[in-house]
Amino acid sequence: MDEFSLIKKYFAPLAVAYGGSLNLTDDAAIVDVPVGKQLVITKDAISAGQHFIGNEDAALVAKKLLRVNLSDLASMGAAPLCYFLAVMLSKDTEESWVARFAEGLKEDQQRYGISLAGGDTIAVNGALSFSVTAVGSVDSGKALRRSNAKVGDKIYVSGTIGDGAFGLRVLQHELHIAREEAHFLEQRYLLPEPRTALGQKLHGIANACMDVSDGLVQDLSHICSASKLGADIHRHLIPISKPVRTLVEEKPKRWDVVTGGGDDYELLFTVSPAKSSLLAAIANEVGIALTCIGEMRAGEGVSVFDENKKPLAVAKGFLHF
Amino acid sequence: MDEFSLIKKYFAPLAVAYGGSLNLTDDAAIVDVPVGKQLVITKDAISAGQHFIGNEDAALVAKKLLRVNLSDLASMGAAPLCYFLAVMLSKDTEESWVARFAEGLKEDQQRYGISLAGGDTIAVNGALSFSVTAVGSVDSGKALRRSNAKVGDKIYVSGTIGDGAFGLRVLQHELHIAREEAHFLEQRYLLPEPRTALGQKLHGIANACMDVSDGLVQDLSHICSASKLGADIHRHLIPISKPVRTLVEEKPKRWDVVTGGGDDYELLFTVSPAKSSLLAAIANEVGIALTCIGEMRAGEGVSVFDENKKPLAVAKGFLHF
Repeated sequence: MDEFSLIKKYFAPLAVAYGGSLNLTDDAAIVDVPVGKQLVITKDAISAGQHFIGNEDAALVAKKLLRVNLSDLASMGAAPLCYFLAVMLSKDTEESWVARFAEGLKEDQQRYGISLAGGDTIAVNGALSFSVTAVGSVDSGKALRRSNAKVGDKIYVSGTIGDGAFGLRVLQHELHIAREEAHFLEQRYLLPEPRTALGQKLHGIANACMDVSDGLVQDLSHICSASKLGADIHRHLIPISKPVRTLVEEKPKRWDVVTGGGDDYELLFTVSPAKSSLLAAIANEVGIALTCIGEMRAGEGVSVFDENKKPLAVAKGFLHF
Repeated sequence: MDEFSLIKKYFAPLAVAYGGSLNLTDDAAIVDVPVGKQLVITKDAISAGQHFIGNEDAALVAKKLLRVNLSDLASMGAAPLCYFLAVMLSKDTEESWVARFAEGLKEDQQRYGISLAGGDTIAVNGALSFSVTAVGSVDSGKALRRSNAKVGDKIYVSGTIGDGAFGLRVLQHELHIAREEAHFLEQRYLLPEPRTALGQKLHGIANACMDVSDGLVQDLSHICSASKLGADIHRHLIPISKPVRTLVEEKPKRWDVVTGGGDDYELLFTVSPAKSSLLAAIANEVGIALTCIGEMRAGEGVSVFDENKKPLAVAKGFLHF
C-alpha cells in the first residue's frame, strides 16, 4: 500500500467527475467560481478513538466525515461544490478498510452532488485520522451567518434534537433500550443528514444560522455571542423523536442530553416574526419539520425554561477535550 | 487547553487580517474570488515521526507546513490567498508548543502575504499531526500544469537540488560534516523557500511545471506521464550547492541522493527553446538561478546521463510508506 497506488486505485475514481481535480495528477486543483458567487470553505478533522469508535463500517466513517462538512456548508446556505481529503493511515490500517471507506465516499458524493478535488495520503504513528475541506458556493453577500440575529427573532431548529447524543450512548453500551429504538438512535449518530437543501432555502429568511454539532444550548450561545444578544428557549418545545421522548419521560434528568449533547447536525436559525409564516412552505418542500423553540432577546446567554416558565439549570454542552 | 480557548488565544489572531475568516467564529469561511480568476487549492498533511522529527522548534514545523503548501501553489503559478489548518494534538502536546507553532505561522503569514481563514483543532490518540489546505488565485485558464510539456522543451530547475535530502540525513545523524555546511543543509530541509514569485512569472513561458518534493527523477517522471512524453537529463548539469558538491565528490554514489531525494521544493519546469532566452531576465528579477538540466523527448520515462552521455542507473526517489 504505497501512497501513489492508494490514490490511483481508490481516490482518483472519486475525482473523475470534477474537472478541476485534474484527476489528482497535479500539485493542486483548479476551482472555477461562477461570476456573482463567493465560495464557502470549511475544514474538519476526525480521529479514531475520538470522533469515531473504530469498529464501525469504514463506509459509515467516510459518510459521517463528509456529512459533517456538508452540514457546515448547509449552515451558511451554500451549495456543495467539491472537497479535499487528507487520509492519515495508522500502521495497522488494512487496504480493505480504505476500499470500504472510498465506497462510502462514492455513495455520498452521488447523494449530495459533490466530488473529490484533491488531497493527501500519509502514514502516521498513531490513530487513523482524516481531515476534509469542503467547498461550497453561495450568491455573493448572501451567506448565512451566526452574527445577524435580531431581538425578537424566533429561534427554530430542523428535525429532532438529542438523537445523536443518545445514539452515541447506545453505541457505547451506556444505554440499554429496545432494538428498534436503539437502531434508530445509532443511525442518527452514525449517519446524520446534512440539511443542504434547507440551508439554501433560508436565504433572505433566516437572520442567523448554524448547525447543532456541539449541543443545542452551547451552539445557541455562539449565535448569542456573535449577535451580541441573549436567547430564551422553552424546553418542552424542543422537538424530540419518539425514542427520545420515552427516554426523557423515564428519567427527566436525561433532558440534559437533549439540550447539551451534540452530533445532531440539524440547523439552528433565527427568523423575524414577520417571516416565520414562510417556514411552513419551506418545511413542506424539504420534508423536514421546522420547530420554533424560543426567541432572541437583549442581554446575553441562553436561558432555558420549563412549561411553567420556570428557569432550568442546564448543562452547557461538552467540549472536545 | 480546550478547543475553544486554543482557537481564541492562538489561531484567531492569525485570521484577523482576512475578512472572510469571520474571525473563526462561524461554521465556515467566505472566500471572495475576483472576476477573471480561478482558485487553486492544495492540501497536505504532516505527522510527527514521519514528516518532522519532533524535537525541532515548533515554529519551524509550522513554517515548513505552510511553505510546502505555498510551494504547491507556486508550482501552479498561483498567488497565495488564504489557508485552512487542522491541528491534531497528541495527548502530550504542551500549550507552549502550540504557542510557538502559532508564532511560526504568524511570521510566515507576513513573509508570504497569506492569512489563516479557518480550520479545526482536535485531540488524537497518537502522533501530533497537521493538515493545511492552501488557496491561491490565478488568471482563469492560466494555471501551470504538469501535462503540457512538449517534445524539445528544455527542462529547468530553480535553485539547487539535493540540499533538502542531505539536510535530513544530517539531522538524522547519518552524515557527519563540518558545522557550517551541516547548518546550511539542515536549514534547507527545515525551511524550504517556496518559489511563489517565480511561479507567478512563468505564466506564458513554462509549458509544464511542478515542485520537486518527492525527488527530481520521480517528480520529472510525473511530468512525463502527464504529458505522455519522456525526458533526458544530464546529471552533471543538475545545479548543486557547494556542500553537496563536496559530498558527491567524496562519494559519487551520493548522486543518488541528489536525483532521488526529496524535500527541495524548487520548481521543475519545461520551456520551449524559443522562450528559454526569457529566463535570464526572470532569474534576475526573482534572484534565483534557473538551470537547464535536459530536454523533453518522445517516448516515456526519465533517462539520466553522465557527462560522457552514458546512461546512468538511478534510484527513482522514495515513496512515503
